[in-house]
Amino acid sequence: MSVTATSARSARRAPRRFRERFSDFAAASPSRFALIVFAALVLLWTGLLALPASSAAHTATDFADALFTAVSVVCVTGLSTVDMTTHWSAFGEVVIYVGVQIGGIGVLTLASTLGLIISRHLGLRARLIAAGDTNPLRSHKGPVAESQAVRLGEVGGLLLTIAISVVTIEAAAAVILFPLLLGHGFALGEAARDAVYYSAMAFTNTGFSPNNNGLFPFAHDYVFLTTIAVTVMLGAIGFPVIYALARVIRHPAQRRRIVSLHVKLTIVGYLVLFVIGGGLYWLLEHRNPETFGRLGAGDGVFQSFFLSAMARSGGFSTFDIAHLHNSSLLVTDMLMFIGGGSASTAGGIKVTTLMVLFLAAVAEAKGVESMEAFHRRIPGDVLRVAVSVVLWGATIVAVASVTVLAITRDSLDHVLFDVISAFATCGLSTGLTMGAPTPAVYVLAITMFLGRIGSITLAAALAQSQQRRLYAHPEERPIVG
Amino acid sequence: MSVTATSARSARRAPRRFRERFSDFAAASPSRFALIVFAALVLLWTGLLALPASSAAHTATDFADALFTAVSVVCVTGLSTVDMTTHWSAFGEVVIYVGVQIGGIGVLTLASTLGLIISRHLGLRARLIAAGDTNPLRSHKGPVAESQAVRLGEVGGLLLTIAISVVTIEAAAAVILFPLLLGHGFALGEAARDAVYYSAMAFTNTGFSPNNNGLFPFAHDYVFLTTIAVTVMLGAIGFPVIYALARVIRHPAQRRRIVSLHVKLTIVGYLVLFVIGGGLYWLLEHRNPETFGRLGAGDGVFQSFFLSAMARSGGFSTFDIAHLHNSSLLVTDMLMFIGGGSASTAGGIKVTTLMVLFLAAVAEAKGVESMEAFHRRIPGDVLRVAVSVVLWGATIVAVASVTVLAITRDSLDHVLFDVISAFATCGLSTGLTMGAPTPAVYVLAITMFLGRIGSITLAAALAQSQQRRLYAHPEERPIVG
Ligand SMILES: [K+]
Ligand SMILES: [K+]
Repeated sequence: MSVTATSARSARRAPRRFRERFSDFAAASPSRFALIVFAALVLLWTGLLALPASSAAHTATDFADALFTAVSVVCVTGLSTVDMTTHWSAFGEVVIYVGVQIGGIGVLTLASTLGLIISRHLGLRARLIAAGDTNPLRSHKGPVAESQAVRLGEVGGLLLTIAISVVTIEAAAAVILFPLLLGHGFALGEAARDAVYYSAMAFTNTGFSPNNNGLFPFAHDYVFLTTIAVTVMLGAIGFPVIYALARVIRHPAQRRRIVSLHVKLTIVGYLVLFVIGGGLYWLLEHRNPETFGRLGAGDGVFQSFFLSAMARSGGFSTFDIAHLHNSSLLVTDMLMFIGGGSASTAGGIKVTTLMVLFLAAVAEAKGVESMEAFHRRIPGDVLRVAVSVVLWGATIVAVASVTVLAITRDSLDHVLFDVISAFATCGLSTGLTMGAPTPAVYVLAITMFLGRIGSITLAAALAQSQQRRLYAHPEERPIVG
Repeated sequence: MSVTATSARSARRAPRRFRERFSDFAAASPSRFALIVFAALVLLWTGLLALPASSAAHTATDFADALFTAVSVVCVTGLSTVDMTTHWSAFGEVVIYVGVQIGGIGVLTLASTLGLIISRHLGLRARLIAAGDTNPLRSHKGPVAESQAVRLGEVGGLLLTIAISVVTIEAAAAVILFPLLLGHGFALGEAARDAVYYSAMAFTNTGFSPNNNGLFPFAHDYVFLTTIAVTVMLGAIGFPVIYALARVIRHPAQRRRIVSLHVKLTIVGYLVLFVIGGGLYWLLEHRNPETFGRLGAGDGVFQSFFLSAMARSGGFSTFDIAHLHNSSLLVTDMLMFIGGGSASTAGGIKVTTLMVLFLAAVAEAKGVESMEAFHRRIPGDVLRVAVSVVLWGATIVAVASVTVLAITRDSLDHVLFDVISAFATCGLSTGLTMGAPTPAVYVLAITMFLGRIGSITLAAALAQSQQRRLYAHPEERPIVG
């Protein structure tokens, strides 16, 4: 065999080898892989946004502002240190739009893939244990077993499903928003652009607004706000729930098989918190002349529930958040910290995480052995993952709050709000972020990144490192974190 | 047998029957019994403090103020709505002194008794399971088994041991404080009275001060402050630790057998948080001219660590807490919320509760089946108790904070601080409590009571209702809550 023939074959093999190595690397530690991918996206977008072409003034944007905006875009947070409606050029706005879509789809894909890996991994464990192997090696210390790795092709399939869902939901929202924007006096092109922009910002739970006053002009357009709210909630409830709902619509007869414990827990938890939030906002704000005090009862209740939806982590606002009473700010802190469903564009510790803690307390009070919900037992190790996620979140929020308090000397009302908004990628702000000194901007940027990427990868990294017991009774595992 | 003979025998039997019934009632639900005892103490002290004889002006004290002070005294919190140094008469101060001693000894006895009941209860379970009974009835639904009930005589013995410890430690502290007070120019009688008063306020972790300016005159007397701090820390570390340390001193050879996992976890956790707190205070306050900024480095570090000890829940202060930066207030919030050791005069969720959450996250990260510390496995059900205690605490603090914010419209910095100070019976204050409107006073009083009595009884009530599994490996159980 000639040298040239061998090297030609090597050349043909090279791309395949690269793909295999890439696949192995991604499968060996999907959490690390995800961190690298998102960090790379942030750096790329920082570079793009810092370009003179991206700013309306055609000058290079400050590194801190470019980095902060890039993190805010890629993590679909919606906080900003520059005026988002005037600072950027048309090119800059396209960069932001594309970044939000990639960030949103990326988060959904990543979280869903990690969920897939976890369940695959656990499935393997169950098989190994059933086969009599009571002490299986922990996977992340040894080579990756073929059957538990998620191959790139599968991720591609998942990515496609998610992308189709995103495009479908966003298109539907845009179709509804377009005539409404025309009705508000927008020109044809402007209305089309804003309809597309708003629907993306809503479904990805980013909350940036293309107009000078954000949602303020639409504060009394119930159809507009309801469209935004429903789109935000679809993004915030999480892909597993959307996927299950879509399948139930297509196969209503198999409803009981499709709707898993995770779906039930998420929907119940999400809605209960939504109602509590709306009720509390109305209770606390209905006499506040700067927020809902001057509105009629019906309008005030509507705005209260709209705010409750946006706190989880839509981030749109129809008025200046700084006008809320401090009591409502604290309520918002809690709603933001909990956030939305797992594998969603929302942030926070996630609804199921809180539900598991609550179910553990209920089981303890009843004196029963296992956490139970909807006639299913939840394995005890899920509680440890939930505790880890909450400890992680509380630690980030505590360290960031003390640091930002020390830097800005602002009140805890504002600091805790903007820090939790960053951690939970909510994007509502008391105004603190916009005027924050550069060191505080970096702290908030790190908080956004750790809150978004860290929280998703943490649960997967933890779940993957578990040794499993064999349970005799039927079990079901909600996704946590 | 004549009628008179029978009734005479009945009369002789009556006290014994009453004692038995009382004992049965206390043993059947010690948590409920404890709640009733403490509520009765609070009502009695409210009545005593409301008497004209108790006030310096010889007029009846407002119901809200009398109730708040009674709760603050019986729960050894140290918060106040009236000026504690001028409002009360000599009689009133004796009422307060006696209330604090009863409250302190009561809390220690109660918490230790509940700990005893829990371990007794679990011991019985283990024996039942070992005997082949795999599904024992839960005790609090059926009659109380003789072997697991803690009889009044035993509680009496425990009470005596605790009372002796309290008197010994307080007497030692008073003996050191007395000459120091003379050195500060106090008259003989005044110095004796204040030495006794300070030692009681320190060991019970109450933190009331008999002088107009509290500890301010002693702010630079290191021996005085160190005596106070050591006495406070002995009270805050908890009776199980004090008891173990006392036994180690008497039987040094049996050290390994005496020092349990609970003792190790408590000491390590307590000291680590003490060091972190002191370091953070120095870091955040060494440039604050209103607190430690004008002090030399040595003095500033000392004051930082003194504050760190007082935050857990001594409640003494050498300066106006409202002068702390907001960042230090938040650090204090966290230290107060965690509090001291189990079965101590300190409040909060307790050190071991946090440690168990932390150990759960460590076990999860390592991928091992059980929580482990100091070569001991911690059963998984302890985690559920810890989660319940933290959920309970977080819920109380959240509800009270939102309510007090809504009532006072003050900043979250001050409201969260005073609410957590009330919940964790710390007694440090930003000044909010002193000027709070009556509805907020009631909310804070309820917070103190639920934080003190609720937290202690909750863990016991939960642990008692458990069904136990048989574990093959050796196990040890720290007290949680
Ligand atoms: K957002
Ligand atoms: K106290």
